[in-house]
Amino acid sequence: MFRYLTAGESHGEGLYAILEGVPAGLKIDLDYINYELSRRQLGYGRGERMKIEKDEAIILTGVRGGITTGAPITISVKNRDYENWERFMRTTGDIESGREVTVPRPGHADLVGGIKYGHKDLRNVLERASARETAVRVAAGAVAKLFLAEFGIRIYSHVLRVGSVEVEYPGGLPEEELKKADERPLRCLDPQVESRMIKWVDRARENGDTLGGIFEVVVFGLPPGLGRYVHWDRKLDGCLAGALMAIPSAKGVEIGDGIALANIPGRMAVDEIYYENGRFYRKTNRAGGLEGGVTNGMPLVVKVSLKPIPTQVKPLKSVDIITKEPKPAQVERSDITAVPAAGVVGEAITALVLMESFLEKFGGDHMREIKVNFENYIQTIIAY
Amino acid sequence: MFRYLTAGESHGEGLYAILEGVPAGLKIDLDYINYELSRRQLGYGRGERMKIEKDEAIILTGVRGGITTGAPITISVKNRDYENWERFMRTTGDIESGREVTVPRPGHADLVGGIKYGHKDLRNVLERASARETAVRVAAGAVAKLFLAEFGIRIYSHVLRVGSVEVEYPGGLPEEELKKADERPLRCLDPQVESRMIKWVDRARENGDTLGGIFEVVVFGLPPGLGRYVHWDRKLDGCLAGALMAIPSAKGVEIGDGIALANIPGRMAVDEIYYENGRFYRKTNRAGGLEGGVTNGMPLVVKVSLKPIPTQVKPLKSVDIITKEPKPAQVERSDITAVPAAGVVGEAITALVLMESFLEKFGGDHMREIKVNFENYIQTIIAY
Amino acid sequence: MFRYLTAGESHGEGLYAILEGVPAGLKIDLDYINYELSRRQLGYGRGERMKIEKDEAIILTGVRGGITTGAPITISVKNRDYENWERFMRTTGDIESGREVTVPRPGHADLVGGIKYGHKDLRNVLERASARETAVRVAAGAVAKLFLAEFGIRIYSHVLRVGSVEVEYPGGLPEEELKKADERPLRCLDPQVESRMIKWVDRARENGDTLGGIFEVVVFGLPPGLGRYVHWDRKLDGCLAGALMAIPSAKGVEIGDGIALANIPGRMAVDEIYYENGRFYRKTNRAGGLEGGVTNGMPLVVKVSLKPIPTQVKPLKSVDIITKEPKPAQVERSDITAVPAAGVVGEAITALVLMESFLEKFGGDHMREIKVNFENYIQTIIAY
Amino acid sequence: MFRYLTAGESHGEGLYAILEGVPAGLKIDLDYINYELSRRQLGYGRGERMKIEKDEAIILTGVRGGITTGAPITISVKNRDYENWERFMRTTGDIESGREVTVPRPGHADLVGGIKYGHKDLRNVLERASARETAVRVAAGAVAKLFLAEFGIRIYSHVLRVGSVEVEYPGGLPEEELKKADERPLRCLDPQVESRMIKWVDRARENGDTLGGIFEVVVFGLPPGLGRYVHWDRKLDGCLAGALMAIPSAKGVEIGDGIALANIPGRMAVDEIYYENGRFYRKTNRAGGLEGGVTNGMPLVVKVSLKPIPTQVKPLKSVDIITKEPKPAQVERSDITAVPAAGVVGEAITALVLMESFLEKFGGDHMREIKVNFENYIQTIIAY
Repeated sequence: MFRYLTAGESHGEGLYAILEGVPAGLKIDLDYINYELSRRQLGYGRGERMKIEKDEAIILTGVRGGITTGAPITISVKNRDYENWERFMRTTGDIESGREVTVPRPGHADLVGGIKYGHKDLRNVLERASARETAVRVAAGAVAKLFLAEFGIRIYSHVLRVGSVEVEYPGGLPEEELKKADERPLRCLDPQVESRMIKWVDRARENGDTLGGIFEVVVFGLPPGLGRYVHWDRKLDGCLAGALMAIPSAKGVEIGDGIALANIPGRMAVDEIYYENGRFYRKTNRAGGLEGGVTNGMPLVVKVSLKPIPTQVKPLKSVDIITKEPKPAQVERSDITAVPAAGVVGEAITALVLMESFLEKFGGDHMREIKVNFENYIQTIIAY
Repeated sequence: MFRYLTAGESHGEGLYAILEGVPAGLKIDLDYINYELSRRQLGYGRGERMKIEKDEAIILTGVRGGITTGAPITISVKNRDYENWERFMRTTGDIESGREVTVPRPGHADLVGGIKYGHKDLRNVLERASARETAVRVAAGAVAKLFLAEFGIRIYSHVLRVGSVEVEYPGGLPEEELKKADERPLRCLDPQVESRMIKWVDRARENGDTLGGIFEVVVFGLPPGLGRYVHWDRKLDGCLAGALMAIPSAKGVEIGDGIALANIPGRMAVDEIYYENGRFYRKTNRAGGLEGGVTNGMPLVVKVSLKPIPTQVKPLKSVDIITKEPKPAQVERSDITAVPAAGVVGEAITALVLMESFLEKFGGDHMREIKVNFENYIQTIIAY
Repeated sequence: MFRYLTAGESHGEGLYAILEGVPAGLKIDLDYINYELSRRQLGYGRGERMKIEKDEAIILTGVRGGITTGAPITISVKNRDYENWERFMRTTGDIESGREVTVPRPGHADLVGGIKYGHKDLRNVLERASARETAVRVAAGAVAKLFLAEFGIRIYSHVLRVGSVEVEYPGGLPEEELKKADERPLRCLDPQVESRMIKWVDRARENGDTLGGIFEVVVFGLPPGLGRYVHWDRKLDGCLAGALMAIPSAKGVEIGDGIALANIPGRMAVDEIYYENGRFYRKTNRAGGLEGGVTNGMPLVVKVSLKPIPTQVKPLKSVDIITKEPKPAQVERSDITAVPAAGVVGEAITALVLMESFLEKFGGDHMREIKVNFENYIQTIIAY
Repeated sequence: MFRYLTAGESHGEGLYAILEGVPAGLKIDLDYINYELSRRQLGYGRGERMKIEKDEAIILTGVRGGITTGAPITISVKNRDYENWERFMRTTGDIESGREVTVPRPGHADLVGGIKYGHKDLRNVLERASARETAVRVAAGAVAKLFLAEFGIRIYSHVLRVGSVEVEYPGGLPEEELKKADERPLRCLDPQVESRMIKWVDRARENGDTLGGIFEVVVFGLPPGLGRYVHWDRKLDGCLAGALMAIPSAKGVEIGDGIALANIPGRMAVDEIYYENGRFYRKTNRAGGLEGGVTNGMPLVVKVSLKPIPTQVKPLKSVDIITKEPKPAQVERSDITAVPAAGVVGEAITALVLMESFLEKFGGDHMREIKVNFENYIQTIIAY
């Protein structure tokens, strides 16, 4: 059983995650985790904060000399500007006034959070509801990616749409192509489309506006048989959708060709089955690598749609929760678009879901044992 | 804690569900449950099986004289043609040959299920992976709908698209309108669009083809504050997406305006906040009733996209798993489209997710206690 | 992930369990399950009911031709006298009066159950709180025992104490000895002590009284390494104690020498470690096969203490919940002692806990795969 | 849903816990948490380490200005001697040799941990399996105690036995008496018995030996109705036993009069029911406050038996895992007895279990809401 909890506020001392159930014997490359954190901070259209704060992961428990021990792993990502916020945010002792938020921002948890948890200072809501939390999940996801990599599983993401500009759908991109996403300013693989996206970002910046979009996560090297069709809550498509929809600003999740499949006749919506050289294969991957909620050996493909970041440079209409008078929502520094970075978050979350599913299927407490179990299963597939 | 497990095969003796955590004192109207089961069987474009088999729920435990006791509820929906299948499907004693499946159907769990669970008769896979399982979840969902109705929460669904025919998006439909969906052959609220959908269904039937589509679930009467933004796996958007994507054939889930939000500038993608007569309100509902993964008091709106049913009247290319020779996949009687019925399934699943979230928020062991807790909370909202 | 839910009332139509996560390819011997059910009904000092009602399990789903498919398994055990109770207990439709209980029995859930769930007819409580529920868990446990037997794991129980009569502690009993428990009227392995126990039972019957006692469960053939010390809730001693203490009437659980270990100096309370012929071993088993909450390869030994069944032939003082007047609690037919049968229940529950832990360690979806994973692990132990 | 994970090694940088589901609006008194940590370090017969290291809790997230926000709470307890261990224990970068353990200590997880997780340096096992982990659970439990105190629930513990010296069972101790346990060197309330216990501790110290014992936890102020009899895994006796048996060195758990109930006839083993002044009550509390796994309004009483700490001053027989040669297990500085401190751990764990159960029953997201729900329930009990 692999599970994890995260904690931390946007302007608190730091973010924390405890990962329980990581097997022993996994090499943890801290540079790789920090590299993943830096990927989350990239992207044309990011705000100032991202440039100031280079995130770094600290591993506090569960790893010894760079190798996991099987014990729970604690990861922390500090907030670099905490010293400026300490007097407003400290956990114990009196806090100073001056940073209260009483005008809820539309599109955020502010108002419902205040009502639900009985807060009159909405900072108590927004500090936790902030997308800042995804930093520590990217660090946790980097551990999951290191784990999956030991079994030849590789995870990529790229941007399909920013605002109204969308690439023609590039299904079946080769791995070599996907590797290049990080070289591109918006992590979009089509340079011509990307240049139009950049113009949209620039225009949005001028207008004090923000942009949503769509990213895609593609996973290579998955064995067939992850996930379970026998009970709805063990189907991998559901598990992935549940985790991905919880990404801040996510409003849509698709598996494989997704919504486009609603549009075409049944006989064109499936991936027919062939056999050659001792293995079953498909020539197409409309299903995105999942049939019946179980991996079928084709690349896993998921798409996530994001609404524009609701924090606006130009304020939105709202109401002061104390006075009940109309008042524009507070303007906070903001990214123009978070879609390129959200793709990196999507990779991390996909990795965490896959790691859980992988460990459920293969069991084992240390890497050598899991590798033997995995290899045996691969042999049974060949012999099937 | 509300939880449930389902069991049962498509041609086995019946389907079963155990629901644990239903509070005491809830009136269970069996006619209503059976009415919901009948709604799942409606819809233009359904196959013959649906017409033969009128599903009926049997409540076996947890209810006494029509009132829940707090004990786990067992619900069964029998398979009416079991007597014809008993000799092939019985759980104990020898089974007869003659119904083996060795050619996996593309788009189903058949092949990956056979590999994963080591089955050479793929009937062992398809019997459980079948969408037939949703019948008992509709029955379970009917219990959840009865529970939610006690708090004024009402759940509807309607069809937005069948094949390539889509209604112009009818956001913000009034409840009166949504009630009419069941009167329509395809559960689509726009008669003119629906007549075109029907033509598509007829044409698909002639071509031996199937059609996917999109349905929408709308929930009225939810209090603000269900779901939690404080931890990703308690966000209601994620919980809903996870459960809805596990519906057979689902390939996309959207919350509120969903993917369309990726397309518009940030300032148009939010629901500004107003206050009048002692309450906060919105004039729009682009977010679909969820901000930060928490209900905000507006109607909850989710959309699910379905691929066409992959069981084709004309067979698809596949391979016999024994001989490894190419062989067309078995043709099974099939619905042309399941989108109208899937909307009913979507209602049930939404109800089950909301009931869990509702009980987590309000606690309580019997209906009177929960109602008092609920009413208190409503008072605190008014006083906020 | 192996999990299960149970449902059913003492005088309802039947008991139900759904087991989710049983691997495919396990042979299910219905006779064995029924044999286990009959063992639960044995024992000197049982009441009339046990003699009338010979329990039989029905498998409704998840098994085909005697082999599990990997799908959820539904098991039912019918209540043979339901026809006499149907009009008082039916789930839907009006029920007749005449069987209401308004005087709570001390020592049962009656009063707290009535308060908690708002019941004025305490039958709604006692029907579910009844130890009758353990019948379906014995059936479920029989499936777990069949699973574990495939890996050479064997589970026994015997009675250590009835009332004040206790055997001198027979730690380290050989398997051959333990097999004989079922041949003894009270499942006690020391005939001389047992004859005294029988006298106590006879005297209690004459006095209209009941007796508690202690049983022990012993498990042979467990590999070292089940359970996890890395997080408290994965320690097997805790998991076992949690499940065993939930047996009706259980008031104490001990692992290995248990409470007696509190009594002796540290150097006598451990099992020193030796090595010979390629394996580590112990000469003693004071720890009962668990160190740090993990199996160490020695037999697992747990003891459960039961209070006397609180249902008395002579009534106890209580109060009518309607009139609030003192009134003796209802006298129900009762066993004099349930300790021998409870041992069988303890075996079943131990089996269910071990099966969950086993599947977590070895993963796998069908028996062949799990066996290979298991065998590999055994090899790594030898090579350690 | 209240849940938590802990992490950390005995000689690593520190211990960590994340608590998810703590309601908003709870005042967190850091001094109180540190007071609880100091109570865990008290007790005659503790080793040197306890005297050197005064534990202090740091709250890193989830609390602002001393009030919970509803967000996950991270608590850390640093290891004060980490600087001396840093080069052997650091998570990343090379570690120095010199602190390897290759001779497993009997009675600890060392050997099975090494086999299970594939470690050849058993330090990787013992660092996590150490009872040091309970420090952060005492801190977490202090949060739970603060929560419960808001509803008038108070938790105490005292020592019943050390080695062979046991107090005559003091059932039904008044709260005033229990408060005095911390004033006593061994936390035993009978001074004369305690003086004999002290002699045993002194003698064990001279002999290089250790002592186990029994402690009792008593909880006042619980409402009737916590826990659920409707499903075995929601029964509070099972939940408590599961959590308490996972305390390091615990080998027995009893509820109420526990094992002694196996010894007496049924009519003396129950708590008869009376009614006066508008409420039901009992004159005895043999059941320890739980009937059917549900609190009945009487004080909750649980007893935990501990084996002697298996770390001996004089070494035990063992085997080097590398050479396979017999070799005495490493001698580590040790407490003579941990029973007084374990009682404090037992309080914390009891508090955590009760808090989960309390939140499940009463729901709510902030303290005011929960208090209203609680108060309503109390009213319904009075009106029952």
